[in-house]
Amino acid sequence: MINITLPDGSIKQFEAGVTPIEIAKSISVGLARNVISANFNDHVVETTTKLTEDGSLILYTWKDDAGKQAFWHSSAHVLAQALEELYPGVKLTIGPAIENGFYYDVDLGEHSISDKDFKAIEDKMLQIAKEKHEFKMRASSKLEALQLYKDNEYKTELIENLEDGTITFCDHATFTDLCRGGHIPNTGIIKAVKILSVAGAYWRGDENNTQLTRVYGISFPKQKELKEYLELLEEAKKRDHRKLGKELELFAFSQKVGQGLPLWLPKGAALRERLENFLKAAQKKAGYEMVVTPHIGQKELYVTSGHYAKYGEDSFQPISTPKEGEEFLLKPMNCPHHCEIFKYTQWSYKDLPKRYAEFGTVYRYEQSGELHGLTRVRGFTQDDAHIFCTPEQLDEEFKKVIDLVLYVFGSLGFENFTTQVSLRDPENPEKYIGDEAHWEKAEQAIISAVKDKGLDYVIETGEAAFYGPKLDFMVKDALGRKWQLGTIQVDYQLPKRFELTYKGSDNETHQPVMIHRAPFGSMERFIAILLEHTGGNFPLWLMPEQAIVLSISEKYEKYAEKVLNLLENNEIRALIDNRSETMGKKIRDAEVKKIPYMIVVGEKEAQENKISVRQHGGADLGMISVEEFANLIDNEINKSLKQF
Amino acid sequence: MINITLPDGSIKQFEAGVTPIEIAKSISVGLARNVISANFNDHVVETTTKLTEDGSLILYTWKDDAGKQAFWHSSAHVLAQALEELYPGVKLTIGPAIENGFYYDVDLGEHSISDKDFKAIEDKMLQIAKEKHEFKMRASSKLEALQLYKDNEYKTELIENLEDGTITFCDHATFTDLCRGGHIPNTGIIKAVKILSVAGAYWRGDENNTQLTRVYGISFPKQKELKEYLELLEEAKKRDHRKLGKELELFAFSQKVGQGLPLWLPKGAALRERLENFLKAAQKKAGYEMVVTPHIGQKELYVTSGHYAKYGEDSFQPISTPKEGEEFLLKPMNCPHHCEIFKYTQWSYKDLPKRYAEFGTVYRYEQSGELHGLTRVRGFTQDDAHIFCTPEQLDEEFKKVIDLVLYVFGSLGFENFTTQVSLRDPENPEKYIGDEAHWEKAEQAIISAVKDKGLDYVIETGEAAFYGPKLDFMVKDALGRKWQLGTIQVDYQLPKRFELTYKGSDNETHQPVMIHRAPFGSMERFIAILLEHTGGNFPLWLMPEQAIVLSISEKYEKYAEKVLNLLENNEIRALIDNRSETMGKKIRDAEVKKIPYMIVVGEKEAQENKISVRQHGGADLGMISVEEFANLIDNEINKSLKQF
Repeated sequence: MINITLPDGSIKQFEAGVTPIEIAKSISVGLARNVISANFNDHVVETTTKLTEDGSLILYTWKDDAGKQAFWHSSAHVLAQALEELYPGVKLTIGPAIENGFYYDVDLGEHSISDKDFKAIEDKMLQIAKEKHEFKMRASSKLEALQLYKDNEYKTELIENLEDGTITFCDHATFTDLCRGGHIPNTGIIKAVKILSVAGAYWRGDENNTQLTRVYGISFPKQKELKEYLELLEEAKKRDHRKLGKELELFAFSQKVGQGLPLWLPKGAALRERLENFLKAAQKKAGYEMVVTPHIGQKELYVTSGHYAKYGEDSFQPISTPKEGEEFLLKPMNCPHHCEIFKYTQWSYKDLPKRYAEFGTVYRYEQSGELHGLTRVRGFTQDDAHIFCTPEQLDEEFKKVIDLVLYVFGSLGFENFTTQVSLRDPENPEKYIGDEAHWEKAEQAIISAVKDKGLDYVIETGEAAFYGPKLDFMVKDALGRKWQLGTIQVDYQLPKRFELTYKGSDNETHQPVMIHRAPFGSMERFIAILLEHTGGNFPLWLMPEQAIVLSISEKYEKYAEKVLNLLENNEIRALIDNRSETMGKKIRDAEVKKIPYMIVVGEKEAQENKISVRQHGGADLGMISVEEFANLIDNEINKSLKQF
Repeated sequence: MINITLPDGSIKQFEAGVTPIEIAKSISVGLARNVISANFNDHVVETTTKLTEDGSLILYTWKDDAGKQAFWHSSAHVLAQALEELYPGVKLTIGPAIENGFYYDVDLGEHSISDKDFKAIEDKMLQIAKEKHEFKMRASSKLEALQLYKDNEYKTELIENLEDGTITFCDHATFTDLCRGGHIPNTGIIKAVKILSVAGAYWRGDENNTQLTRVYGISFPKQKELKEYLELLEEAKKRDHRKLGKELELFAFSQKVGQGLPLWLPKGAALRERLENFLKAAQKKAGYEMVVTPHIGQKELYVTSGHYAKYGEDSFQPISTPKEGEEFLLKPMNCPHHCEIFKYTQWSYKDLPKRYAEFGTVYRYEQSGELHGLTRVRGFTQDDAHIFCTPEQLDEEFKKVIDLVLYVFGSLGFENFTTQVSLRDPENPEKYIGDEAHWEKAEQAIISAVKDKGLDYVIETGEAAFYGPKLDFMVKDALGRKWQLGTIQVDYQLPKRFELTYKGSDNETHQPVMIHRAPFGSMERFIAILLEHTGGNFPLWLMPEQAIVLSISEKYEKYAEKVLNLLENNEIRALIDNRSETMGKKIRDAEVKKIPYMIVVGEKEAQENKISVRQHGGADLGMISVEEFANLIDNEINKSLKQF
């Protein structure tokens, strides 16, 4: 008999040789039906693996990330089989599950695959799936494995590089593949398949090697789930911030200025400024003070902070001066500068906390291949602040920062989020700097703050930065995608490295604690996420243009201008469309620009000194006065901006 | 007989051999009394030089810069004579007039000079002055000159390097010096002398040479003028922006961050932001749009703009990336980035002008020895904008920029200014790029604009930038010092280099004209000048703190807090002094901080729900309500901010 510990802590006895699926059945038939993969003693196992010792077992369904990974990993086998059958002589290489779906890299020889072939591949995969083949793991000798792949130089290379000598295959139907395991019970669970794209990929990612064909696909246990996924994909394409950024004239890139260095066009710059002003106002209420620091610093500054030793070689390289032998670095973060500001004055405990905020533009080198719109750039502006406080103030300050972050998320429509508390790995104390007592205090401060604020949180042991623990906010956007936004970090290290001090009530010199925080993270990334979350339909207070005045014909241009003036006097951001186009065309164009309100003016409106209001998306608000409209706008803005 | 043309264009006949002073006498006795130097046919001459040919004569008095230069040059001779008499064996080297006064570099041998010796030098100089020695020029042979200076290696070197072979001396009393001429008639005109300082200076500015002693002095035709100058000097020391910046906690420097890279402390950052918001509001009204661009750009960008060829080697050196072989430069100006923004969109003439504004921080290398507070830094933020317009719009746009600059100066209390129109040198057309017609048009646009606006202007031929003419504003500060603030430049060149175009009404492609402009110049330099101009007593709307609440004793702390809240609700920037100090001490501290209004609260005030108001400098405004005080502040602000 063996003892099996389940995730809820309960321990059950089974005969040695029991399989995960049998254990599932012993719990409930429903569970057994849904279980698609398993983990035993921290190792991926098959649902049919015989368990022969005591241990912890986790059973996964489609709802678990691990379940999805097994599902897509198994689907990659099915894809490989389909490709072998459709393209005789194809050489398989590797085919992993990825975040959404899976791919397989193959050497097609004289064949080629285009999107016209996708349907045939999908059909073949579904046919194999329907046949409900079981996935079975099998051990093999190296000789046998090399013999099997004698015509496949890629698999041969893989086998020869296997260090531990254990070689396993996975078989299903007539197909077999070199594999470490972790499959769903049988192919029949795969009910829906979509080949998404083909792309070129070098063997082992090295451009000196042969170029292979990478076939991307995704699969689901239900047809409906595939349909929803494809709709989401379609919607995500429409909401791609790079596409919207262009359409809404927010930002641009120039090859001449350099990759990954956004140029903010007038409407984008104004949007940024509104976001900055919004945060500035809240920060002012919360007792922050703005500072301004340069975008470079002497190399020495980053040697002191420890950043140079850690990142120097992989960063933008030092800037030298013509004669004086100095070396400067583009600043990759603002904290060393803020430390120097704190250090400039001799503080007493009565002066603390000092909260220095700066919309600080920082530069970090990224390989050009990894740049992506505004989410992965080489220069970005952090909504940065550093709080210097006494150890006694840490708890309170940490909670105040959480309040600020929640206010920001609430006012920008991110209602759906979780938090992650990243702590030390107690088994690897050598990975962290600073003393035990400080760590203990900082970790407790974070945990007590998230509990106190009633936040939904998970604790991730071993995920802390080397200088201190942190709290991350993960928001879910309108398409259900998770983004990390907002970080709060506790740091005892920089105050030590910069020898920051204050005079305590005991008249002795003490070292302050530092909190690093950025609710947006960076203006660039935040605006990108906000664009994709809202599809460009920002909260009204943020919209580049809140209303557009459309005159029915040239005759009412004068009245339209008058209305525009009235709107501007009411601090409504409005523009006018006096082109000699049809009303239909004007409305369509305004819809594309996502302008929330269309103000139509013609004879009746001019006579009665009113405006006809149409909302983005179609709703007709009828004929009202400009004052009524201004009130409506005010109310809508006040409703979306939370209290702070 | 010779014909002498005077500055008013009149031509007078004199016998050959007439001297400038005799010509002055022929005009009026008063003029002759005041003339102290002269210029004949663009050459400096003595007032006693015999004129033997036709030519143009200018007569200078103390009021002219050239007159002052002759006065101080002559005073340097007197200083040298005094030093020879006081320090036997001293070796003279050179002794020029400078902007304010003069100096003489001497090799003192075994002697030394400290400030204790200044009085003796001044007395000796005044004694020589009183003796009314005439300055007389005399030609000499090289041999004779070398003989005279056989023990002075410095003068020997000077004589040997004289290329044109003409060697002249100036004699007065028993003293003689190698000299090119340009003196006042006699030493008696020098009525007041002050030795200002001594410093070390290397012979010929080369640190490998002997170190000499530089004696600085200044002299005046009246004792009263010296007194005024010394008072001004004292006031300038008090107003030194580096001193005030520290006292008012506006900015700091850190050796670790780097020289010439200011860190803006909270009060300074807030001041900057108020200035920026003030200009932003005016720019918005004037149709500018804000953009945001990165602080680096590819080297290629500056090769295109032509800046790399001109400044590359003497600038901050390129930033390389770890693998990709890219090269970036810290941006020394914003124009190339703005050109790329303009280029991103295909414009029609109907869309122009586009006015892109940015508070753009730029970095320019300066040798560390030349850095000075905020006026000479390595990183600074320009209140930059670039206007892209059609050639037809140039006149109008240029005038609008002048209006904006005048509004800025008016609102900040710079009432006293002149302008300088910098044009091409028609004799050296090869110094400039771009075609003749464009230059002609641009120069005319500037001249017509300054005339139209009734500005006080001088034309400086040959002072244009190589790419276009410009208009500079020179303001006179409260101490009478001139500062160049605000530049407007016309540029046909960058649009050409960046291949900028728009579609004209003729449906053809045209090239826009660019106007570069910055009313403040840079935030750093402007704030420095504003600090020295106002002595830290900024216009009320700009003040870091507008009022301070001082409680008479602990008993009224609560009421003081209430008053502070009321002030803040009225958007008055106020703080509180609740220390247990005497009222006298609190007032003195508030005076040092230059806080415009001190609000004293005690029993009577608390009872009547009022406040006692004391103005910075001492005026007592009596007991009034907070509302009355708020109105008073509002009125003062509205009075100082000009209409735009």
